[in-house]
Amino acid sequence: MANDDSEFEPGDDSIGLVETQQVTLFETPNELCLESGVKFGPINVAYETYGTLSPEKDNAIFVCHALTGDAHVAGWHAEEKRKPGWWNDFVGPGKGLDTNKYFVICANVLSGCKGTTGPSSIDPNTGKQYGLLFPFITVGDIVKVHSALVKHLGIDKLLAVIGGSLGGMQVLDWAARFPNQMAAVVCLAAAAKLSAQGIAFNVVGRRAIFTDPKFNRGEYYDDTEGPRVGLALARMVAHITYLSDVSIEDKFGRRLQHSSHLKYDLDQETEFQIGSYLHYQGKRFVERFDANSYICLTHAMDYFDLAEECGTIGQALQNSDANFLLASYTSDWLFTTTQSLEIVSELVKAKRNVSFVELASSKGHDAFLLEIEPLEQLVRPLLERTRQEVTERRDPSEKAARGDHNG
Amino acid sequence: MANDDSEFEPGDDSIGLVETQQVTLFETPNELCLESGVKFGPINVAYETYGTLSPEKDNAIFVCHALTGDAHVAGWHAEEKRKPGWWNDFVGPGKGLDTNKYFVICANVLSGCKGTTGPSSIDPNTGKQYGLLFPFITVGDIVKVHSALVKHLGIDKLLAVIGGSLGGMQVLDWAARFPNQMAAVVCLAAAAKLSAQGIAFNVVGRRAIFTDPKFNRGEYYDDTEGPRVGLALARMVAHITYLSDVSIEDKFGRRLQHSSHLKYDLDQETEFQIGSYLHYQGKRFVERFDANSYICLTHAMDYFDLAEECGTIGQALQNSDANFLLASYTSDWLFTTTQSLEIVSELVKAKRNVSFVELASSKGHDAFLLEIEPLEQLVRPLLERTRQEVTERRDPSEKAARGDHNG
Repeated sequence: MANDDSEFEPGDDSIGLVETQQVTLFETPNELCLESGVKFGPINVAYETYGTLSPEKDNAIFVCHALTGDAHVAGWHAEEKRKPGWWNDFVGPGKGLDTNKYFVICANVLSGCKGTTGPSSIDPNTGKQYGLLFPFITVGDIVKVHSALVKHLGIDKLLAVIGGSLGGMQVLDWAARFPNQMAAVVCLAAAAKLSAQGIAFNVVGRRAIFTDPKFNRGEYYDDTEGPRVGLALARMVAHITYLSDVSIEDKFGRRLQHSSHLKYDLDQETEFQIGSYLHYQGKRFVERFDANSYICLTHAMDYFDLAEECGTIGQALQNSDANFLLASYTSDWLFTTTQSLEIVSELVKAKRNVSFVELASSKGHDAFLLEIEPLEQLVRPLLERTRQEVTERRDPSEKAARGDHNG
Repeated sequence: MANDDSEFEPGDDSIGLVETQQVTLFETPNELCLESGVKFGPINVAYETYGTLSPEKDNAIFVCHALTGDAHVAGWHAEEKRKPGWWNDFVGPGKGLDTNKYFVICANVLSGCKGTTGPSSIDPNTGKQYGLLFPFITVGDIVKVHSALVKHLGIDKLLAVIGGSLGGMQVLDWAARFPNQMAAVVCLAAAAKLSAQGIAFNVVGRRAIFTDPKFNRGEYYDDTEGPRVGLALARMVAHITYLSDVSIEDKFGRRLQHSSHLKYDLDQETEFQIGSYLHYQGKRFVERFDANSYICLTHAMDYFDLAEECGTIGQALQNSDANFLLASYTSDWLFTTTQSLEIVSELVKAKRNVSFVELASSKGHDAFLLEIEPLEQLVRPLLERTRQEVTERRDPSEKAARGDHNG
């Protein structure tokens, strides 16, 4: 969309250049009380915002990112030139989360490695990176930081929180923990708890990192290399779970990478295209992600269990008056439709407002990042309806006025 | 079943004590011509037989074992005391493969590590283990060795060949390559080619081995440890694919290993039971399997493509007059029902004799090893019918006699 003469200039449907902002929260003596019981602070939070907060502060939407995402949801960073944010197709002027109408916020998660305090941050007590001395973080702890950021931005009630995968877990936890802080909840390709199979894949990924000799029990920050091999392996196995068998078959099948015939060579680890692709994914991942953060965040996923504290999912969410929208994807085998339906069923029984759609897609778990149009068609009317309700609740005459027009 | 006084004495339904036998085939100048074009020999073959070969030599059944199996299908080895063979519940007196009636043969596969020549065998040219200098082996090469063993045993035509998973691939290849060598073909939980997703998991497993510093490019036999860490990781990820999500959920769910509450400890890699179980599986596996064999055999799986040479599966199998029986398992996501049905459809179109059953099981790919009763109910009548046909074909008066009785 940008032309050659001005490569930083974004197209009409882009937010354009954006910058990550920073704020420090939970400073002494107001440390965050983590779910493990540990008090932790200060916490630096990296976040981005797009669009303009309305005078009534009723148009803010918080995006919760997934396992390896970050605060850079949309637009471009100057230093990365044309590299757009991870949900750039969904967030921007006229898009699903329309920045002409809404004020969109996203923050890097606690224990991440993209600006928010995490294992690679300097521990002020030692002057060294935390490494594995970083405290054990849960989805609830992540949400508490997000919630505090929203308050810091002067917003009492978000119009919506939205997220997929680990982001969807945050959305659910947020609705349970701070039910009055949002008017709508959009939970995509997620679950009230990770399946045992999902935990199993995480166990293998962490094992690959732990057993990399360069991991050195998390103290690798002075090393030029670090546990690149183990982290790449963890990413390779996880990446398989993000794709569907059909999408792998369609994209790669049994096609070979550099030849029309088999090589009969035991060393040929990238002979099939799928092998080459996975190696590339692993290699690219270690350039942008920290192994200790990966360990912390996959542990948070494993631990997440929405029903645990309250007994049932319905009881956990019963205090929320938000409009819930859940979506799953037919070919997602990491977070299945059955898991979404479990939440929907509990919400219905708890007499909450809930809609659910199973979207047809061959793209597996990654579908929530890739299938933008059907998502727009679901989210746009929910946001419009919710904002209307919020406006009417604030000023009942609005409703009467609308009633007059309609009558 | 064995009583305390005689712990080697098997129960009534066991074959009892068995021994692995050895034979050397493909001696100079009759080396095996591998599919890669390399000539290879001599090849030592480890095999076991149970039951008695009939005077007509028409009751022999060859069992093809899966990726990490071996020739020890049933009964007990003296040195392992009560540890039974891997399909002991299915093979024995009065069992699915009834050793009172049939002569059952199983051989360790070429490039394996249980007695048949493989990477851990001594290369007579160097006096050292082959390691990764072992030639690249295909499913077809494995089958050629099995076929030669059958001839060596003086058997012209097997009553049946049977196998699951990689064993099922061997069965299919055998029927295509030597169509006159068997009267029945039983192919369980297999496919005409591995899915791209299956290749992806194998790529990750081999990568874990290759990147283990103790792998040393396959030359680890003088090392006391070897690539135990990488091989265990490979097994852990593979093991997940052998189970179904339901079986993992039922068996482990989110239950904890040694505690009733979460530990909030980043080091706790075996906190959930599923993690502990996978670690145990990995650890146990490295005691019994060779990493180089694992590399060779997963490569053979990746390369297998029944249709490749002939154009279609139907064309590959069109010269076989065997009775085909295929079975898949509802919860098997590594070798799906769709993949079995692809073969069935091609066999029907090629006017072959084929039966197919999808068996209901929650046990995933491992079901063919675990769900014995439904398997018996399928295989027993097939064997009886096939033997009857073989007898009648040899001596048409048998048929007439039977006709008289029936008429």
